[in-house]
Amino acid sequence: AEVKKIAVVAGDGIGPEVVAEAEKVLKRTEELFGYRFELSHGLFGGIAIDEKGTPLPQETLELCQNADAVLLGAVGGPKWDNNPKELRPETGLLGIRKALGLFSNIRPAVVFDCLKDASTLKPEVLEGTDLIVIRELTGGIYFGEKFRRDSENGQEAVDTCVYNVKEVERIVRQGFEVARTRRKKLASVDKANVLETSRLWRETVNRIAPEYPDVELEHVLVDNCAMQLLRRPSSFDVIVTENMFGDILSDEAAMLTGSIGMLSSASLGEGSFGLYEPVHGSAPDIAGQGIANPIATILSVALMFRLTFGYAEAADVIERAVKNVLDAGHRTGDIAVDKSKAIGTQAMGDLIVAAM
Amino acid sequence: AEVKKIAVVAGDGIGPEVVAEAEKVLKRTEELFGYRFELSHGLFGGIAIDEKGTPLPQETLELCQNADAVLLGAVGGPKWDNNPKELRPETGLLGIRKALGLFSNIRPAVVFDCLKDASTLKPEVLEGTDLIVIRELTGGIYFGEKFRRDSENGQEAVDTCVYNVKEVERIVRQGFEVARTRRKKLASVDKANVLETSRLWRETVNRIAPEYPDVELEHVLVDNCAMQLLRRPSSFDVIVTENMFGDILSDEAAMLTGSIGMLSSASLGEGSFGLYEPVHGSAPDIAGQGIANPIATILSVALMFRLTFGYAEAADVIERAVKNVLDAGHRTGDIAVDKSKAIGTQAMGDLIVAAM
Ligand SMILES: CC(C)[C@H](C(=O)O)[C@@H](O)C(=O)O
Ligand SMILES: CC(C)[C@H](C(=O)O)[C@@H](O)C(=O)O
Repeated sequence: AEVKKIAVVAGDGIGPEVVAEAEKVLKRTEELFGYRFELSHGLFGGIAIDEKGTPLPQETLELCQNADAVLLGAVGGPKWDNNPKELRPETGLLGIRKALGLFSNIRPAVVFDCLKDASTLKPEVLEGTDLIVIRELTGGIYFGEKFRRDSENGQEAVDTCVYNVKEVERIVRQGFEVARTRRKKLASVDKANVLETSRLWRETVNRIAPEYPDVELEHVLVDNCAMQLLRRPSSFDVIVTENMFGDILSDEAAMLTGSIGMLSSASLGEGSFGLYEPVHGSAPDIAGQGIANPIATILSVALMFRLTFGYAEAADVIERAVKNVLDAGHRTGDIAVDKSKAIGTQAMGDLIVAAM
Repeated sequence: AEVKKIAVVAGDGIGPEVVAEAEKVLKRTEELFGYRFELSHGLFGGIAIDEKGTPLPQETLELCQNADAVLLGAVGGPKWDNNPKELRPETGLLGIRKALGLFSNIRPAVVFDCLKDASTLKPEVLEGTDLIVIRELTGGIYFGEKFRRDSENGQEAVDTCVYNVKEVERIVRQGFEVARTRRKKLASVDKANVLETSRLWRETVNRIAPEYPDVELEHVLVDNCAMQLLRRPSSFDVIVTENMFGDILSDEAAMLTGSIGMLSSASLGEGSFGLYEPVHGSAPDIAGQGIANPIATILSVALMFRLTFGYAEAADVIERAVKNVLDAGHRTGDIAVDKSKAIGTQAMGDLIVAAM
C-alpha cells in the first residue's frame, strides 16, 4: 500500500501518553490491513518553547507540511501561562492552523452510552443527541489586526473581526456537505442583528442554500443557540459558525454530552489534509501518572482514517474495538464509577489494540 | 413622598400585556407605602417603527432621559425582521442603551422552586444555583466601527471590538461591589489568550483586585465558562464580562435555571438611573391572547425599587407576594404542569396585587 505520512506532535501534559496509545493503534492497523504509515515526531507547544525557544519551530511546521495528516496530543500548561504572547503554547496552535490553512474545525458531540449519566443534563433531554459543530478556524477576530492605542479614557485595546465572502463560502459549503451525509439539517449561527460580519455570513448562507434544497436550513442567533443547545440538544444535526462563536458553542456542546473526555476533532484544509486531536486539553494535573484516558486520541485516529485517508473500514474497526472494550466494563479513572477498579492509559490502549 | 418619574415603554408582542400588570403593582405600592410614581408612556421598538418611522423616536428618548427609571416590556417580532438596519427594533435597543449610558446589564439567574423541574439540568446539579451575570453593555464589538470593503476574495465585512481602561474599570468595579453584597466570589470572563481587548480587561481586573481583598477572584476563559456553567452552575456567584460574551453567557445561564420566563434584568448607568425589563422576549406567537406570564416584568419593578429607588421594603413585599401566589399553586400557561388549570395574564397580576 501507499505510504501515508503522519506528523505526530504529542505536545504537553498528558499529550505524549495518550499519543503513544494512538500510535499502537496505527501499528495494529498496519498489521491488520496492510496499510503503511510513516510517522515523524515534532516538538510543539510548551515543550517546543522549552527546547527550541518557540511554540512552533520551523522544522515542526515543515514536518506537518510534508505530511498527509497530523496527529496532535495537547498543548499548554501553567508553566507557560504567564509568558509573553510569542512564547505561549496557544500562539503555536493559532500559528499552525494558519500556516497549514486549516480553515475548518469539525467537532462531533455525541453521547457515549457508558457515559450517559456523566452529563449534567437530564437523560431524557440528551436522548438522541448527536451533533457536529463546524467552526471556521482561520479567520474572524482571532486573526484580525490587534493593537493598543491611547485614548481620553486611558489605554484602549482593539481587535478586528474580518471575513470575506470566500472564507464564509468554503466553510458554509462544508456545513451543507456534511449535513447531507447525516440528518440533513444545518443550523447557521451568527449575530446578524448586530455584526456586519454576521450579515455578510447570513447573506452568503442564503445565496448558497438553493444549491442544497435537500438540506433544511435554520438561522440561529448565537445567544439563542447557547440556549437551544441546552433546551433541545437532540434537535441539532450540523451547526456551522464563525471562529469565536464556534469556540464557545463547541465547548458548550461537548460538555453537555457528558462525554468530553472521549471526543475527537478534525481540523481540515483544502483537499484531504487534516490535523486530528482530542477535544480535551493537556490536563497537567494528571500528566506523567499513566492514568489519562487515551480513547479520544484513539478515536481521532479513526477520524483521520475516515476524513483524510478514506480508510472507512479501518475506522470502523477502531470504533468498534473502543465500544467493545467499554461494553466489557473497562474504564480509565476519569470515566470509572468505581475508581478503585480503574485501569491505566497503557492498559486501556492495549485492550483496544487487542480488540481490533 | 417625592414623586418618582417612570418612563414606561411597553414595546411589542406581549410587552403591553405584561407591562399593564406591572403598572398595577406600582399603583398598589403607592397605596401601601405612600410612594408616588408619575408614569409616562412612550413608543419604542416595532410599534414606534410603524407609528413614527423609527424604533427610538426622539420624544421617547427624552421621556426616558427625564425619568428616574425606565420600565421596558419587550421589543421585536417577525414583522420587522427583514427591515433595513435603521428600521429594526434591536437598533432602537442598542440606541437607547448608548443614549442613556446604560453600561451595565445585570441579570440574576436564579432557580424558582416551582420551576425546579423545568430545567433541562439535573436537580442535584442545579441545587443552590444563584448567580448574577454583569455584562458590559455600551462597548466592545457591538459599538465599534463596522463596514464593508472589497477584497481579492469578494466583499469583506469588518467589525471592530474596542475597549478602553475606563470602560473596563467601571464595569469590573461594579462586579466586585455586587460580589461584596453576596457570596464574595467574582469570575471575570475573557479570552485573554487570543484577544487584545481581553488582555487589557484582565490587566485592569488584576490592577483593581487588591482593592477588594475580601472578594475571591477567578479568571475564566469564555469557552471554559460556557462549559463550567453546565458543569458546576452553583459554584458561580457573580460573573463579569464584556458585551458579546455577556450576551451569550447570560442567555446560557438564564436557560439553565429553567426559570427564564421569570427572570428580570436591570441596565444601569452612572448614578442610580436604570432601565428594567424581563429577560424573556416579545413572544409574538402568544401576543394579544392574554396568556403571557407577567411575573418577570413585575419582578423587574422590584429590582427597580431596590437598585434605583432604594425602596427595599416594597421590593420585599412584591417578591413575597409573587412567592405566595406561586406557592398557592397559581400558574400561567408557560409554567403550569396542568395546562387546563392555567390562569391568564390579568388574573396573575390581580392575584399578586391582592397578595401584596
Ligand atoms: C487555546 C485557544 C487559543 C483555542 C482557541 O480558542 O481556538 C482553544 O480554546 C480551542 O478551542 O482550540
Ligand atoms: C436584540 C439584541 C441586539 C440584544 C443584544 O444582543 O444585546 C439581545 O440579545 C439582548 O441580549 O438584549
